[in-house]
Amino acid sequence: MKFIREIIERLLKEADIPIEVAYWDGEEKKFGGGAARHKITFNSPRAMMRFVFGLGMGFCEGYTDGNIEIEGDLQELLTIPYRVDLSNPALKHLTNLSDFIASLRRRNTLSGSRKNISHHYDIGNDFYRLWLDKNLQYTCSYFKDTDVDLDSSQIDKMDHVCKKVDLKEGEEVLETGCGWGGLAVHAAKNYGVRVTAYNISREQVSYARRLAEEEEVEGLVDFIDDDYRNAKGSYDKFISIGMIEHVGKENYRVFTDLIKRTLKEEGKGIVHFIGKVTPKRGNSWIYKYIFPGGYSPSLSEVLSPFEEKGLVVRDIENLRLHYARTLDHWAERFENCLDKVGDMFDEKFIRMWRLYLNSSSVSFKCGGLSLYQIIFTNGPDNREEMTRESLYLPDLEAPKWNYTM
Amino acid sequence: MKFIREIIERLLKEADIPIEVAYWDGEEKKFGGGAARHKITFNSPRAMMRFVFGLGMGFCEGYTDGNIEIEGDLQELLTIPYRVDLSNPALKHLTNLSDFIASLRRRNTLSGSRKNISHHYDIGNDFYRLWLDKNLQYTCSYFKDTDVDLDSSQIDKMDHVCKKVDLKEGEEVLETGCGWGGLAVHAAKNYGVRVTAYNISREQVSYARRLAEEEEVEGLVDFIDDDYRNAKGSYDKFISIGMIEHVGKENYRVFTDLIKRTLKEEGKGIVHFIGKVTPKRGNSWIYKYIFPGGYSPSLSEVLSPFEEKGLVVRDIENLRLHYARTLDHWAERFENCLDKVGDMFDEKFIRMWRLYLNSSSVSFKCGGLSLYQIIFTNGPDNREEMTRESLYLPDLEAPKWNYTM
Repeated sequence: MKFIREIIERLLKEADIPIEVAYWDGEEKKFGGGAARHKITFNSPRAMMRFVFGLGMGFCEGYTDGNIEIEGDLQELLTIPYRVDLSNPALKHLTNLSDFIASLRRRNTLSGSRKNISHHYDIGNDFYRLWLDKNLQYTCSYFKDTDVDLDSSQIDKMDHVCKKVDLKEGEEVLETGCGWGGLAVHAAKNYGVRVTAYNISREQVSYARRLAEEEEVEGLVDFIDDDYRNAKGSYDKFISIGMIEHVGKENYRVFTDLIKRTLKEEGKGIVHFIGKVTPKRGNSWIYKYIFPGGYSPSLSEVLSPFEEKGLVVRDIENLRLHYARTLDHWAERFENCLDKVGDMFDEKFIRMWRLYLNSSSVSFKCGGLSLYQIIFTNGPDNREEMTRESLYLPDLEAPKWNYTM
Repeated sequence: MKFIREIIERLLKEADIPIEVAYWDGEEKKFGGGAARHKITFNSPRAMMRFVFGLGMGFCEGYTDGNIEIEGDLQELLTIPYRVDLSNPALKHLTNLSDFIASLRRRNTLSGSRKNISHHYDIGNDFYRLWLDKNLQYTCSYFKDTDVDLDSSQIDKMDHVCKKVDLKEGEEVLETGCGWGGLAVHAAKNYGVRVTAYNISREQVSYARRLAEEEEVEGLVDFIDDDYRNAKGSYDKFISIGMIEHVGKENYRVFTDLIKRTLKEEGKGIVHFIGKVTPKRGNSWIYKYIFPGGYSPSLSEVLSPFEEKGLVVRDIENLRLHYARTLDHWAERFENCLDKVGDMFDEKFIRMWRLYLNSSSVSFKCGGLSLYQIIFTNGPDNREEMTRESLYLPDLEAPKWNYTM
């Protein structure tokens, strides 16, 4: 075990943050200058072994099992992998064998997707209502300023999306992956559009249908409990928020086929998703425990099938730090209702979710995660708005191009 | 020749615009409903053959040689390839053999690039001054409204670029491919930055140096007559406007290496270029006669090397129709000074340039050309502006993120 300790200590030394480490046999050591702000406790030799031989997975599993304990600022501790040079020969034993195993992930066939989605989204609407905003927006919020709260920023997000695709009264909208229906209902109520929304989470669809009735827009929104691949019809606008992370890389061509098939010529759409600056597999623990079947692509991985179909990209915005802020809100609200969460789930679940929310926030801040909003049209639209000004000047009647060829 | 005539007539019939065709032997025919708006004359059997067996190249060469004559609206005629289904078996003989030959293009080695650039940009500053705007911006303009003129819109373009990379007084800027120096001088004068600008067009560099003296910013701008690949130093901002079209696909990794090497951590940059909706070679005639060594990439072709280097894409805007409008201005101004152009060049040159300006405009309107502005940072910048609002609200003090990890 001396060898294992040496690697752990080398890592903590390199990380250069004031931290204390405690081993299962009672030994304690301190690293970094000044008073220790954090403490990491390894409760068993096995926890140490797994930490070293499967850095991400080993730490995450050890933490959620309670074999690794953390005091201090979890997010700062989670920056350690980004503070050190993992290619350094002294750290070469910090391998990620378990990542390989986790990469044999669940496939997104029609039935596989049902299982994958149910794993995360069907664990109870009451749970999500505890800590999400009042419109149950479980995707990146949009903060116009530093002091805007979660409820308002999620409304601003919905409007940012609706304005980006230029929703107009009477238009037909296809939404794939509609969550609890918040955006579809918002769009119907405030923009007068008709929305057909697909979702394979039964819990979410039944909630969304009740919401539409409560908000008296049941004539304008149609929530369909079915896979996006079965969508039919012809639409003016296409919206997909936080869904292609679940589609899987092998299905991007199926996804763009769907857009090409259902979106009218010159129709406009948005694809909003968690992506990566550099294409790579990412955090295996997340894909094993939180989002089975998930994959966050780089921009070029998504754009390549868009290009094959002749979808014209008009605008891309990276809302990276908006998602970090959103996750920080969620993490804080989650901690504030732990007693209620504790009535629903066990301690392991709580530790797992705490880790998921905080590690995701850290990944947006410094780990190469991004949040991309791609706006596109089905073929060139020669009557489009000249600039993006109207997104920011709401009362502006935006000048438009008017080429007829 | 009957077979050749049949193919030409089939094409014109499919195109469905009112057009008259005249053959070298005096025969005339009319296609499309209503009075003919256009007339195309084939002055020799060879012109007809070349038109059929090398559609794009054959037409363009025939037109510039005067063996094919056009009356009517050149741009509407140039939409013909987009109006017909070229995969139609009846049109299958309209092959593009000459495209293959033209694709054996000139390579962008250090000396090859010098020759390629000189071919287009060293034909005389006086020629470009005849019809470009007063700041000699030979790249896509930015029109805030339909009635803005070329001079104003080019100033708006320069400001749009400067604001997108958030230029601040005292910053060091690297510009690769600076044209006649208009943007570098504008940025130095109006934003107080120091610009180091590379260009391998001798004519442009000597003009740019005189401009800097006239505008009294010679202490702030340094025009270097050298290849971008030889750039050195460390900069806060990186600017490249209309340059990677000349870099060639084989050099994108060299180009992103340069950015990574010269841009400070968290430094911001813009790459502005003519791209394609779908990756393909494009108009061979343009690459043979107008821009040897050129290539307009799709977004994913450019983004992939950006991703490998960890450059974080923050914002992408497609200014497709802004370039169509810019080209229409240029084409009109070119026609308005034909007498002066005629003193400098022959009739063939004039026809070639008329075709280049008009066919490019048509390609932006309906032929799959785009103008992308990619804004990126070298690694994540956790103090970036929260929204893009300040681009559109100039007096706004934009709220910024302030994450320290």
